[in-house]
Amino acid sequence: MKTIPLLQPLAADLERVERKMHEPVHPDYPQLTAVLHHLLDSGGKRLRPALALLAGRFYPTDQGKLISLAASVEMLHTATLVHDDLVDGALLRRGHATLNARWSAGATVLTGDYLFARAAALVTETGHVRVMAIFAGALMNICSGELCQIFDRHSLPRPDSERAGQAILDRYDQRIHAKTASLFAAATEGAAVLSGAPETEVRALFDYGQALGMGFQIIDDVLDFQGDERVLGKPIGSDLREGIVTLPVLYFLRTHPDDERVRAVVRGGSSDGGLVREVVAAVRESGAVAQAVERAREFITHSKAALALLPENEARTIMYALADYSISRTK
Amino acid sequence: MKTIPLLQPLAADLERVERKMHEPVHPDYPQLTAVLHHLLDSGGKRLRPALALLAGRFYPTDQGKLISLAASVEMLHTATLVHDDLVDGALLRRGHATLNARWSAGATVLTGDYLFARAAALVTETGHVRVMAIFAGALMNICSGELCQIFDRHSLPRPDSERAGQAILDRYDQRIHAKTASLFAAATEGAAVLSGAPETEVRALFDYGQALGMGFQIIDDVLDFQGDERVLGKPIGSDLREGIVTLPVLYFLRTHPDDERVRAVVRGGSSDGGLVREVVAAVRESGAVAQAVERAREFITHSKAALALLPENEARTIMYALADYSISRTK
Repeated sequence: MKTIPLLQPLAADLERVERKMHEPVHPDYPQLTAVLHHLLDSGGKRLRPALALLAGRFYPTDQGKLISLAASVEMLHTATLVHDDLVDGALLRRGHATLNARWSAGATVLTGDYLFARAAALVTETGHVRVMAIFAGALMNICSGELCQIFDRHSLPRPDSERAGQAILDRYDQRIHAKTASLFAAATEGAAVLSGAPETEVRALFDYGQALGMGFQIIDDVLDFQGDERVLGKPIGSDLREGIVTLPVLYFLRTHPDDERVRAVVRGGSSDGGLVREVVAAVRESGAVAQAVERAREFITHSKAALALLPENEARTIMYALADYSISRTK
Repeated sequence: MKTIPLLQPLAADLERVERKMHEPVHPDYPQLTAVLHHLLDSGGKRLRPALALLAGRFYPTDQGKLISLAASVEMLHTATLVHDDLVDGALLRRGHATLNARWSAGATVLTGDYLFARAAALVTETGHVRVMAIFAGALMNICSGELCQIFDRHSLPRPDSERAGQAILDRYDQRIHAKTASLFAAATEGAAVLSGAPETEVRALFDYGQALGMGFQIIDDVLDFQGDERVLGKPIGSDLREGIVTLPVLYFLRTHPDDERVRAVVRGGSSDGGLVREVVAAVRESGAVAQAVERAREFITHSKAALALLPENEARTIMYALADYSISRTK
């Protein structure tokens, strides 16, 4: 488990989360155990469980249940990655071969399902109806968001009015909320509820997770335009290659509505690598990427403002630092 | 919704379950609504929700929550069918084209995930921790069972002792428990818990669902050898073609341990349709199919014995009839 330095104070608890996730369930099937461990050990930063652990530090919480919740959130995240990689046909994730690059589609689907099931079983260990409802809601959001991304793929509506342009941006927001922010928010809100926090502080912790997740995902989308391929462990322009339109492209199109290269790439998918690189360069040089970073920064500012409603403690200090890290990170 | 005649007394409640499952969730995505309705309307018998409704009739139960539980169970079942068909590459289910026959693998995976999420959200509506835990446990069983089926596929261990032979039969039992009986049992146990039944009766309703599910799945496996293709809506010998070994084959091998045709078919999958038909005929004529029916009958007898512990009422009468139907059905 390789987390980031600022989460070091959580190391002992994160280690408990790892052990929870690695608990053997089917000793009869060493193949299954091996593949699960491979997936769990493939280098996630463990941000989501860290968020749950941090949000659970404001009030006295049953630590065993908090660990189960944190493990559940990361397990759910891992399940979605396994299915996403299959859907995208991605062969690399974090510099490692994806499961679908080595296994059949069938085995990959069922392994993802198994991880979903484990996540559901782990959240059940909290024994808390509202926490379980938060988890189920996040799962719904994530799955419908992924489906919507498929429906929207390869399509680039031409905004013929300011209102239409805004609707396209709103739809992007909906998508990244579903894809990322909803699980960040479920981690913080779930832990707050589990620890019996007062409603105003549950709300503040929800807001923090939600805004952090929005900013975090925009930076993810930005890194697809200006990141370092060796650091990211995947090629630049991956989204565009798959026909997925993200914020930098939407901003670019506001000033270059008739750029036919963008439309060709989005429509055609990965057919022409040279054209993808050309579009990536054009978007980067147009200032659209910087504008997207600015929008991420607004969300991060909002996430920090939410923290102001919470008591001062070490967890809050780390959460501030995590918000700043989300903007400055390179992978 | 086309259920079987003996469930007619539940028609009004089953209709409420249908409405619950069809509740629109994402009106922005008519494509999603259309495909969900197609899946939900493809002709299931609604046995699983019926089991929940019946088990909920022994005690005064919150009807809204019972409907949510019943809808959740059927939604979960539908999700597993969508992924199973993808894993098997099946193009027909109940005589209709499967989703993966018409959509990309990616869209099929995500649609299944979405149905899992909806199932989790529906069971959350019961607001009952233990019911949700039962649901999560069944989900774990189903997913690990599906994975185990993949691991065991195309393999046919040669039993060199009576103990080894028994271990192979035990593994078959584990697999059909995971695949079918665990969800039948979750439906009856979940409804019993939801309605506040005393523990002895929760246990009796669990036992009924469990034994019924085992018998039901054995008959499913039997129908793959002696059913009518037009009635079943899929070709005979489907399991064998996919390298899946079921009870009739296991019984056949006890008296024909050296039959190389069976081993060739199981190892080779669907390569030779003529050989599959030959093996199906040999298994049928050997008496192995009749022996499997006998084993199913034992489970059904056990399921009816469990009912004897429950108060007499209309639900119990229907549950007896359902047990008998499970043995005599032709599809």
